[in-house]
Parts: sequence; structure tokens; C-alpha cells
Amino acid sequence: MNKREDAINLHKALRGKIEIQNRVSIETTTLGEEGGMLNLIYTPGVAYVAEEISKNKGLIYDYTSKWNNVAIVSDGTRVLGLGNIGPEGALPVMEGKSVLFKVLGVINAIPLCISATDKEEIIRFVKTIEPGFGAVNIEDIESPKVFEIIERLQSELSIPVFHDDQHGTAVITLAALINSLRLINRKFDDVRVIISGAGSAGYGIFKILLEAGCKDIVVTDSKGAIYEGRQDLRDPDNLHKQEIASNTNPRKLVGDLRDVIREADVFIGVSGIAGLLTKDMVRSMDSNAIVFALTNPDPEIIPSDAHNAGARIVCTGRSDFPNQVNNAVVFPSVLRALLDTRAKVLDEKMLVTASYAIASLVEDSHLNVTYVIPKVNDPRILPIVSQTLKKAIRKRCQ
Amino acid sequence: MNKREDAINLHKALRGKIEIQNRVSIETTTLGEEGGMLNLIYTPGVAYVAEEISKNKGLIYDYTSKWNNVAIVSDGTRVLGLGNIGPEGALPVMEGKSVLFKVLGVINAIPLCISATDKEEIIRFVKTIEPGFGAVNIEDIESPKVFEIIERLQSELSIPVFHDDQHGTAVITLAALINSLRLINRKFDDVRVIISGAGSAGYGIFKILLEAGCKDIVVTDSKGAIYEGRQDLRDPDNLHKQEIASNTNPRKLVGDLRDVIREADVFIGVSGIAGLLTKDMVRSMDSNAIVFALTNPDPEIIPSDAHNAGARIVCTGRSDFPNQVNNAVVFPSVLRALLDTRAKVLDEKMLVTASYAIASLVEDSHLNVTYVIPKVNDPRILPIVSQTLKKAIRKRCQ
Repeated sequence: MNKREDAINLHKALRGKIEIQNRVSIETTTLGEEGGMLNLIYTPGVAYVAEEISKNKGLIYDYTSKWNNVAIVSDGTRVLGLGNIGPEGALPVMEGKSVLFKVLGVINAIPLCISATDKEEIIRFVKTIEPGFGAVNIEDIESPKVFEIIERLQSELSIPVFHDDQHGTAVITLAALINSLRLINRKFDDVRVIISGAGSAGYGIFKILLEAGCKDIVVTDSKGAIYEGRQDLRDPDNLHKQEIASNTNPRKLVGDLRDVIREADVFIGVSGIAGLLTKDMVRSMDSNAIVFALTNPDPEIIPSDAHNAGARIVCTGRSDFPNQVNNAVVFPSVLRALLDTRAKVLDEKMLVTASYAIASLVEDSHLNVTYVIPKVNDPRILPIVSQTLKKAIRKRCQ
Repeated sequence: MNKREDAINLHKALRGKIEIQNRVSIETTTLGEEGGMLNLIYTPGVAYVAEEISKNKGLIYDYTSKWNNVAIVSDGTRVLGLGNIGPEGALPVMEGKSVLFKVLGVINAIPLCISATDKEEIIRFVKTIEPGFGAVNIEDIESPKVFEIIERLQSELSIPVFHDDQHGTAVITLAALINSLRLINRKFDDVRVIISGAGSAGYGIFKILLEAGCKDIVVTDSKGAIYEGRQDLRDPDNLHKQEIASNTNPRKLVGDLRDVIREADVFIGVSGIAGLLTKDMVRSMDSNAIVFALTNPDPEIIPSDAHNAGARIVCTGRSDFPNQVNNAVVFPSVLRALLDTRAKVLDEKMLVTASYAIASLVEDSHLNVTYVIPKVNDPRILPIVSQTLKKAIRKRCQ
């Protein structure tokens, strides 16, 4: 089997993985007849509906598809492992995402691959489309600009803004870590965690681990450990790294990954660098080491190598190894909950709730080193995760 | 039957008239399994497709739904007869339009109801979404700002920009006029035409009639006949009226509708004013008068009144009178042709071609004063109109 050829041939045959479908049956033969369906769904009947909404904007949730519409917005500047391939290259990826939104979350996700790459223009764009959507999913926009885009949109829009590269990855990573610690009987506040990579995924994971109660996190980037006072953090483009520095690295470690990983309990790799984690590094970690080598398609370390060097639990982003850390477990169910509650915001507490709900799907009797996360095809994900999150959101908003 | 209640209850029950449907069947039970569909339509397989497109942008038409995607863009500033009701109020109308695009043109039309109302912002918005769409349909944006928006977009985008209020109305009106003149055996270059209304519809009709060969057109607005030198035309907002003045009114008529309609052969009302055309005015027209009273829901004159005053042929925008002038005959088939030919532009010649194709569907043996336009449910519209237009477009591009 040639994967490249299979994928290209399938796309050529499909010419689009999604399409618009009508939710109302129109007999073309009676179309336009007096009293027919057309006169209700379009002029003149729809004018009454339009008028009602214009007088009471909230009715848009009851009379249109806004309640179930998510915009998938990408400028194509950081697509998968491919980098800046532009909005055209991003479209098949976003269509694939839309397929998953539908099949796993019963959500209408509309890909909007845009030619604007300027931060302010992207913010303005998303604000412009707000009226027709119940939520926004930002996807594959390069960091660091994406951080300010997300922050600004979250504060300026009245619909929730989800950033899958950041929030989706964080939620599923935390779920895997919850169960890994459960398996080895450790607590968040007594483990040392290394996060390798300070892009969208690394930043999201840092934030959710902090919320989950981690006290000793060290984040590394291409320049080594991030610590307060590191020269380059003054750069205004590095505000998010400044935030990381202020909230992590309590032992003020400096140096590269090799230096800081010694005696760590948990390694989380979202570095984008295949083979970054050597067996020697794993050996230098604590016994019972937990290794999440999440870079795709080639992870920071091959699971067998990690195990051979002493790792107890290994997760990757791949479907051909055990313990796949897959965002598709997260975004459909979390967005389902956000849409159903008409949440106006999305915060770290909600994300942690989602992680615990996902983790709970692995029963004590099944939990083991090759099964710390539910698989993406687990039919309990949508009902359990969305219900749990909806309950939590409603409780907080009461 | 209460139309208002019926329309609102239907919309409440549907909660959205359109939705996203997957074009690929995904068995959730096998989702994520090695070698499964998910690995081809999403990561890792889709990366090959994304990469190919990024290297050869034209492939986006072959590997994604761009070829069949139309953006319906509205700022809600001039919705139906309701005026500026905002983007929220516009959404149910655009969803209805999308239903018609699908059922009559087999096109994916995505409603984008936007909060931007500034001319430059709307232009920038549409340019931003260009990568994912094969064509754009601009809808219910107030004039005169919409004229510059259309002109700029048509020259700055490399996909066709259709403005239904202008182009759709013009095409179906010309089709009705072609057959009306055929019935009374007159030619475009020997009839006197009055167009009442100089908004999107009036401007579009003026342009298409000029292209069709009309030599004596007078356009009236709230200030009466438009003529060269009229004081208010110097206003930079009235550039389109200046264009009308320079190309119409060869006999330099001044005065209001009552003055200029005398001895006219054709009245085309797109004024937005119910009852504007009196029986006396119709009596003052030429014998065999053709009256198109297209304002909805209440026309410029009721057909029976027009006939009683001597009109030979009467068309309205309503489905409960004969000869309904309905844009839904036009936009699905014209956009189908534009998408299938990957046309880069849309011009008056193409629009005239579409009108003749529509008119041709009324055979000589059926043509009569109550049947000058095919009904919207005529199954020949899509194949005949789109094929004729496609042939014309391909011929010109060879």
C-alpha cells in the first residue's frame, strides 16, 4: 500500500470531503407553488422570521443553524508538520477536520481558509463572521502570533473560541497524564514534568498542567530551559514564553533538555523534532518514567526504545502504537458542550473538567501501561464528555 | 392558514435549513484503526494532499470542494423589503437561498452573514475568503455602496462575483422581456422602456437592457427621470446614476414617472413602492403595453388593474399571479455554469446569453400573455441554461 497515492486518489475521487445538505425536503416539481414549502423557507415567508430575529437577536439560535455552526479558521501558516503551506494547502486538512466534527460531534463545521496572515486582519476577520456561528475553532496558525489572536478573540467575541492546537492537545495530554499518574499512584503536585516545545501545543499543555496542580514544570525550547531572566524573553514576540517563565521552573534550571530532564518523572514532547529524546535521557529520568513523544509523524523517541531505556508508560500521536494522544477525542465533544450550553467563554477549568471526563472512560479494571487513554472510536466519548462538561458549565453559570 | 405563524413554526422546528454532510462514509467503530479511512482523509494521509496543493495551487479544484463552493455574503443592510435588519436577521434568508442553490443547482452555498458594513471592510472580507470558494454571491447589501463593492471585487478577485439583486433580477427580467417582445413582435431597438427604481435591481436591468440592444431607456428614481446634468448626480455616492444618465434618456425627458411614462411600451417596476403605477399611467402607455410590476410583496400595480387599463402582458414577483419573475430561475443555473467552467469573470454578455437560454424554454406553441417565463420548477432550467452558458463561456475563452 502506498499511503501517498491512496490519499491523493481518494481525494481526487471525492472532490471535497464535505457538502451542504438541506434539512428540509423540497420537491422541485411543486417548487414555487402557492402555499408550498418554498414560500415558507424563502420569500415571502422567511421575511417574518428575519424580522423576528432582527427584533430579538437571541432568536437566531432558535430559527437558524447558528446553534450548531462552528467556523474552522486557518491561514495555513503552520499546517500539520508541513509549516507555512498557505490557505489552499490547508483546505483538505480543514475539510477532514469538518468530517470528524460531524461524525464525532454532530456539528456543522465550516472550513474558512483565509488569505490574511496579519494578526490584526485575522482578528478582524473572525469578529466579522461572528453573527452566523455558535463557536470558532482556530487551527494551524503559526505561533507566537496565534496566542494574541486567541486571547483577543476570547475577550472580544461573545461566542467561545477554541484553539485545537493548544486546547485540544492540552486536554487529551492531561487526560493521558491523569491516568498515567493514577496507574503509578502519583499526584500532580509531586511530579517533575518536562515539556519540550513552546509552540501552541507546549503552551497549552503548560497552562492546563498548571491548572491541574502541577508545581514543578520545566518547559524547553530550541534554546534550552525557559527561565525567568532569559535574555530573549524580553522580545515582545515572546510574551507567552515570559508567562511560562514566570509560572514554571521553580528550581531555576538552566541548560538544554539533556541537563534538565535528569530525575524528571514526566517528559512531554511537542517539539516537532523526530528522535529528540535519546535513550540516555530516558535512563536519566526517574524510575517509572512517563514519556509522551507526541510529535507526528515521527515521535521524539520510538516507544520500544523508550521502554528499553526504562520508561514505564509511553504515549505517541500515532495510531500504530498503543496510547494514541489524539485531539479528535477532544474537539467534537468539547465543542458539542460549548454549543449546547451557549457558553460565552472557554477557560482552563472547563478544559480540566473535559480531561477528567475523558480519563474516567478508562475503568480501573482496564487501566494498564498500554491503555491510559480511550480510543477515538470509543462511543462513550461524545455523551460522557459533553454531558460532564455541560453540567460543569451550567453549574458555574448559575 | 397564518403565513407568519407557519413560517416561524417551521423554522423553530428545523433549527437551521442546511447542514454539513460528509461525502465519505466513516465507520466510527473502526475510526483511528491503522489503514482506515481516517488516516487518509485526516492525518497522516491528508498531509500528502495538502503538500501537493501547496506546490500546485490549481489542484485545490481537484482535491477539495472549492470547485462547488459558493460564499453567500451579506451584511444585512438591505434584506428583502425589510431594509437594514442586520446580519442576524439576514441569516434565515441566506439559509433559504442556500437550500435553493442546492436543490436547483447542486451547489454548496455557505451563508456568511457578516458584522462589517463598511465598503472597504466588506471588500477585504471577501478577498480574505477567496481561497476556499469557486465563486461569490453577494446578497442584500444596500446600494449605492454595493455597486463599488461588486465592481472592485470583480476586478480584484480571480473567481467570479455574482450579485443576485443586480444580475439575477436583470437576467430573469430580460428573459421575460425577450418573450414579451417575441409575443407582440417587437424588437429591443424600437421599444421605449421605463425602469422605475435605481437600486441594485434597476441598475442591473439598465445594464442588461443596454447590452441587449435597447436604445430608449428612461430610469426614474424618487426624484423623477434620471438625465444628464441632474443636479444631485454630482454626489460621489451617485456614480452609478451618472452612468445611467450618460447611457439612457436619449430624448432628454424630465419630470416624474407620470410625465415620462406616456407612450412608453414597457414599464419595469423595481421601485419598492406598492401601488406606484396608477391605471391612468398604464392608459397613457402605448397600446400593447408590457408591465413588469416586480416589487414584493405588494407590486407597483395589481395585474388585473393593469390589464383593465390596457396592459397586454403583466409580470410580477409573486407566485400567486401568472408570469412570476423569480431569481431562483437564474442564480443556481448561472453559478453552475460559472463553477463548471472555472470562469474568472462574469460580464453582461454572459448574462444576456443566460436570459436567451431561459427565454428559449418557452416554446412558440406555449407562449402567451400568461406564460412568458418558465416556472421555477421547470426541470429543463438547470441543464439547458447551464449548458448554453458553459458553451458560450468556453467559446469566448478559446
